[in-house]
Amino acid sequence: MKKTFTLLFSLALIGTSLGQKDAAKFREIYSQALTEQQGFAWLTELCGLGPRFAGSEQATESILYFQEVMDSLGFETRLQAVKVPRWVRGPQEKAWLVQGIDQAEMAVTALGGSVPTPNGGLKAEVVEIPSFEALDSLNLEGKIAFFNIPMDPSFISTGYAYGSAVKQRWAGAMEASKKGAIAVVIRSLSSSINKYPHTGSMAYADDIKKIPAAALSTYDAELLSKTLKSDPELQVKLDMRCEWKDSVYSYNLIADLKGSEKPEEIILVSGHIDSWELGTGAHDDGAGAMHALETLYLIKSMQIPLKRTLRLVWFMNEEFGLNGARVYARSAKANSKEKHVIAIESDGGGFTPKGLSIDASDPIISQLKNYRSLFEPYGVYQFSKGGSGADINQLKNDEIVLIGLRPDNHRYFEVHHSALDNISAVNAREFTLGSATLAALVWIMDRDDLCLPSKP
Amino acid sequence: MKKTFTLLFSLALIGTSLGQKDAAKFREIYSQALTEQQGFAWLTELCGLGPRFAGSEQATESILYFQEVMDSLGFETRLQAVKVPRWVRGPQEKAWLVQGIDQAEMAVTALGGSVPTPNGGLKAEVVEIPSFEALDSLNLEGKIAFFNIPMDPSFISTGYAYGSAVKQRWAGAMEASKKGAIAVVIRSLSSSINKYPHTGSMAYADDIKKIPAAALSTYDAELLSKTLKSDPELQVKLDMRCEWKDSVYSYNLIADLKGSEKPEEIILVSGHIDSWELGTGAHDDGAGAMHALETLYLIKSMQIPLKRTLRLVWFMNEEFGLNGARVYARSAKANSKEKHVIAIESDGGGFTPKGLSIDASDPIISQLKNYRSLFEPYGVYQFSKGGSGADINQLKNDEIVLIGLRPDNHRYFEVHHSALDNISAVNAREFTLGSATLAALVWIMDRDDLCLPSKP
Repeated sequence: MKKTFTLLFSLALIGTSLGQKDAAKFREIYSQALTEQQGFAWLTELCGLGPRFAGSEQATESILYFQEVMDSLGFETRLQAVKVPRWVRGPQEKAWLVQGIDQAEMAVTALGGSVPTPNGGLKAEVVEIPSFEALDSLNLEGKIAFFNIPMDPSFISTGYAYGSAVKQRWAGAMEASKKGAIAVVIRSLSSSINKYPHTGSMAYADDIKKIPAAALSTYDAELLSKTLKSDPELQVKLDMRCEWKDSVYSYNLIADLKGSEKPEEIILVSGHIDSWELGTGAHDDGAGAMHALETLYLIKSMQIPLKRTLRLVWFMNEEFGLNGARVYARSAKANSKEKHVIAIESDGGGFTPKGLSIDASDPIISQLKNYRSLFEPYGVYQFSKGGSGADINQLKNDEIVLIGLRPDNHRYFEVHHSALDNISAVNAREFTLGSATLAALVWIMDRDDLCLPSKP
Repeated sequence: MKKTFTLLFSLALIGTSLGQKDAAKFREIYSQALTEQQGFAWLTELCGLGPRFAGSEQATESILYFQEVMDSLGFETRLQAVKVPRWVRGPQEKAWLVQGIDQAEMAVTALGGSVPTPNGGLKAEVVEIPSFEALDSLNLEGKIAFFNIPMDPSFISTGYAYGSAVKQRWAGAMEASKKGAIAVVIRSLSSSINKYPHTGSMAYADDIKKIPAAALSTYDAELLSKTLKSDPELQVKLDMRCEWKDSVYSYNLIADLKGSEKPEEIILVSGHIDSWELGTGAHDDGAGAMHALETLYLIKSMQIPLKRTLRLVWFMNEEFGLNGARVYARSAKANSKEKHVIAIESDGGGFTPKGLSIDASDPIISQLKNYRSLFEPYGVYQFSKGGSGADINQLKNDEIVLIGLRPDNHRYFEVHHSALDNISAVNAREFTLGSATLAALVWIMDRDDLCLPSKP
């Protein structure tokens, strides 16, 4: 009983100490962010520079442009060289549904990493594959394999629905090639029916023939499926000029705001600066990159004191190999003068934030949950254990606290990896709440030492 | 101490009884709604019928069309006659910023209820009014009063920001006329800078001269304000052909799903079917109307048993006088055979729902809060006291439980009352979560009698 009382008493104390002063500070951070909306202005500029596919000129130019912005704000910046693979979509990617002499064009896009079709394209009959379980019994010899596995709309989190359907994208070509297919088209991983195909990375196995791989828009996947039912002998023609080139060097961008007491302890905030090239990566992950920059900006411009060093990292090439994250993690491990105590990533889009996923020890997670009431007025109420982000996960060890920002994701997979991922799909207020949430989180975690103490 | 124990014990019991079975039922309701998305299909149809301004033919036609839909679904429907004022925007509403012989057109719209300008328009110098406090010291004689009070972006809820700025719309003409102004233009109540003016209702006082009242788009309000600083003698020309006509009859639409044990007890779900006429009222309040219909549909099609009668009401003319709500409330009061125990309203748009505002006694609110864990997985976590909705508020008495659905509202006031409030501004998944939330709420409140017991 006494234990219960002590617990209740300390909870009450936390309630008080978290009380009005901290709530007022949170209010101040969110108000400032929403009034100024500086991050959204930068995100608009970033998208204006064009797509930022790893290895492209625009990706590197975007980094150099914003390094100047960060320099002018007084952050200590540096570039970290990252070698990235270079795959180019090429001038043409087209598909047609062919019935006798009739051809109807379908919206299609090459999957990242695909080999091209032969010059002039290829044409074959199509076998629809409703699930990976159905593959075994299908004969794909000389055919185009058509994976048509929709994202399940009944999932509340579209992220789970994506996870349950994404195998057709990364493994479809591999599995279909084993069974003799000459190409693969998949249903775009989109949560709505539209005419904008979604790209994304795919892989080949070394010992299996590499066949061209592309995604049809969900609209065209529905059309193809329906037409196949009445005309099983229809053909699809596919013509894509994508190609692999030599790897090139690009960069991670790093910017520090030095801590006053423990500058050797690093609190990292991050997003990835590369994007797919159909849109301009406004949500994926321009929003995350700008959440990180606006976090540093708010902390500095509001003169919020930090004991530890707050570091921004814009990782290069999350989309196509995590090269930047791997390079950064190796260098962090090798540097005995610094210790990463917290790493935060935003890579779920610029929508209203609703929670944090925390990869840390149970005591740290419990401690963080005590602060939930401070975040709730701003819509952030889900503090869940496990999962953070693909880039910062490379830093994982027994001591670091990894945190991923979790926004509302009902609209995310309508634009993700497609030509629709542009600034017009981002709402300034929704985006800005993400930055404010991270700034408030960094402030409170640093002040109250919500991480493992560093060992000398 | 014993009391505390009993309390903790009963909370634990509630925790268990709310456990897996109820969570599974909630999951079933949300899954069904997200998979089928029937309400969104209806909302798309509704918007296709055009704007539904009270007194217009389309408003009545929309009601008659959906009465047939509801009949075909097996609900008991009826119309309730409602007399509504008839104000017509007219073929022309234009404004120009005039400097010497230069004229630049501005995006403008008449406020609902405004008198027209004289034929050919009116032209005068402009006095900018930054706040109602500033009014006293300003001379408006013969001038156009320009209320330029922005929605404060630092508010977390855009609803509060709207509330703090809306006085310029409904009282601007009244106050400016007292001081001799010949017309009033206000800054649109929009949370972003865009070229789409927002309309809304305004009022005159009987003893004060009625002057024309219009809203400029936020873009043009900014432009006018900036230009005034360099050229205080610029003029604005305003030309509007709106007019008042005789009142006409329209309808509330009512549909019942009879309860099995207490059919005389009514659980009401509602939205208003009228809209402004610049857009098609997709969010305001087509979404709310369809939330109500999809709630009945889900309960019936999933064969969820209800003890009480579930009643849909689509109120006529929330926007311009609450006539439908007043008529309905009078008839409800007069009907001794029925008792309204719960009334729910959705009039905050079709965005991701995040909470419920509850106008009821404290014990009922506490009881409802015990169910929060069932709603949280679906993003609904804010259960707040007070406020529900303008229409159901007409039913308020000591016994009824009033509940308003509270969606995320960061995008709401970018489209509200403007030409942007169309189906393309509504996301199917976000909208559908609202319907599922209401269906789950109705089910659990009816099953567990979360309302005052009715007296014989």
